[in-house]
Amino acid sequence: MVDSDDVEAAARRLAGIAIRTPLIGNDALDRETGGRILLKAESLQRTGSFKIRGAYNRLVQLSPDEAGRGVVAWSSGNHAQGVACAAGLLGIHAAIVMPGDAPRAKRENTERLGGEVIAYDRLTGDREAIARKLAAERGAALVPSYDHEHVIAGQGTVGLEIAEQVTELGLVPDQVLVCCSGGGLTAGVAVAVKAAFPFVRIVAVEPEAFDDTVRSLASGRREQVRPGAASICDALQTATPGELTFALNRSLGVSAVSVSDEDVRRAMRFAFRHLKLVLEPGGAAALAAILAGKVPTAGLTSVAVLSGGNVDPELFAAIQAEPN
Amino acid sequence: MVDSDDVEAAARRLAGIAIRTPLIGNDALDRETGGRILLKAESLQRTGSFKIRGAYNRLVQLSPDEAGRGVVAWSSGNHAQGVACAAGLLGIHAAIVMPGDAPRAKRENTERLGGEVIAYDRLTGDREAIARKLAAERGAALVPSYDHEHVIAGQGTVGLEIAEQVTELGLVPDQVLVCCSGGGLTAGVAVAVKAAFPFVRIVAVEPEAFDDTVRSLASGRREQVRPGAASICDALQTATPGELTFALNRSLGVSAVSVSDEDVRRAMRFAFRHLKLVLEPGGAAALAAILAGKVPTAGLTSVAVLSGGNVDPELFAAIQAEPN
Repeated sequence: MVDSDDVEAAARRLAGIAIRTPLIGNDALDRETGGRILLKAESLQRTGSFKIRGAYNRLVQLSPDEAGRGVVAWSSGNHAQGVACAAGLLGIHAAIVMPGDAPRAKRENTERLGGEVIAYDRLTGDREAIARKLAAERGAALVPSYDHEHVIAGQGTVGLEIAEQVTELGLVPDQVLVCCSGGGLTAGVAVAVKAAFPFVRIVAVEPEAFDDTVRSLASGRREQVRPGAASICDALQTATPGELTFALNRSLGVSAVSVSDEDVRRAMRFAFRHLKLVLEPGGAAALAAILAGKVPTAGLTSVAVLSGGNVDPELFAAIQAEPN
Repeated sequence: MVDSDDVEAAARRLAGIAIRTPLIGNDALDRETGGRILLKAESLQRTGSFKIRGAYNRLVQLSPDEAGRGVVAWSSGNHAQGVACAAGLLGIHAAIVMPGDAPRAKRENTERLGGEVIAYDRLTGDREAIARKLAAERGAALVPSYDHEHVIAGQGTVGLEIAEQVTELGLVPDQVLVCCSGGGLTAGVAVAVKAAFPFVRIVAVEPEAFDDTVRSLASGRREQVRPGAASICDALQTATPGELTFALNRSLGVSAVSVSDEDVRRAMRFAFRHLKLVLEPGGAAALAAILAGKVPTAGLTSVAVLSGGNVDPELFAAIQAEPN
């Protein structure tokens, strides 16, 4: 299992590699909620999402032999960019299996970062099977996007920074909301923040149609999303929680809520108008939960992780043009 | 005149009021320029621009009598919001004379912050005359947007933070580029950064049509913009440098360059795509100068101030939709 020592070790490895992203307050948000809201802007991280943290923490621990054979990952786009960037920094070859309909910005950036992109059809192909076959052929190491201890510990550095930055402000957080797909960021943040603030509530935020963590935490076992699930949050579409991440999130008492696509779109408009930040749909889910009143916030200190900002301009413009 | 002690005093007054905005690096920008580029993201400041710094530093030094009679300002929008926010924090009434065609976001935010907005026709009215008449009628203090020592010292805290943040990174800046209208931010930043780094080059960046500072620094006297000047940068449209700001910028050896509207639009696209930041046209001018190669950057450490992010969604979307 991953503990806070693992996260601190990851933070040492990531020093000078990952950006210590700002924790941002906003008057309009505090006024709207009646609480104190702080936003951890991982959209400003290298590659536009938190993913480089976990990817680098995995890649930097490969043996020289493993590194020489390269790595293989599968990803809808943010993990792809994180792996490509980390691999580039370490001189490791990275192949990434991506859906053919991934946002253009994510695919282009992955290639720009030197990643070898292998496209597959999201409706008929099995990206994990494709990646595992490729890795076996090449003797390459897999870089899972969430269900790996080194990846979880790397993402946990987001939580370590939150704990430090909240402390610098002289505050104690009541809750930390985290955009959740496979649960790696949530688990890592939970490990790190709970080590500093044992009474903090960690809330995973999922799209309504991909509420596998919500239902899994309720039932006590790993539930699957319903067939045909769809969401605007391209980054938050896993079918079921990871084994490791679910065990961690369950044992750490993480709770979970879900948000609608409309909640997410509204949060993206709020971010443009009041925060001056570009958020992608999946990166706005935690903020959406706050704005939609999915958790109590009045009189509380709440932190929301803004996990990514990789969105195509056409979709962004269409969402901004909608009435509020 | 304003010196670094004035800026440090302003920083003490602004502690807990203005956000210490992040200084952001970006791989794509470093790759494109062959240098090290750091961006001071004042678009993430309260009210979406740096303007609250100077406004608050002026308002907080009013006598109780003056404060009781309120203040009057004129502004195309960012200073308006800064004054309204600072006045709200201090319980002072603020009337702001704004052009009727100011960006909607700027006007709405000014009103939301409690400012009394007085609209005038930019083509036929004289906003300064309207403001002076109103101030005389009410016995109210004026809050100039740049040509006042307290305002300049307040804006200078941007430079103080740049000096601190660059030092924390173990770097010495070769140049600092500043979006320039009346020259208050430029002068304040020049005072503060040159106090820490005497050999740094300070570069004011203006829109091509509003290159009064470029021409004034060249001729040695305050030049006027040409009649009928137009620019997409609504925040950078002063007709001539301020008396105080010009004297400061000249004595501090500030240099100046200009950028085209197309340079600015491209910088706004770069900011969306690679920085995940929403910039308004005027807020992107310094970045535009870097991307357009208006200053040498290869092998150098350059800081650019991103001075604001208050832009209407329609304009933003139109710019993002353009080919790069």
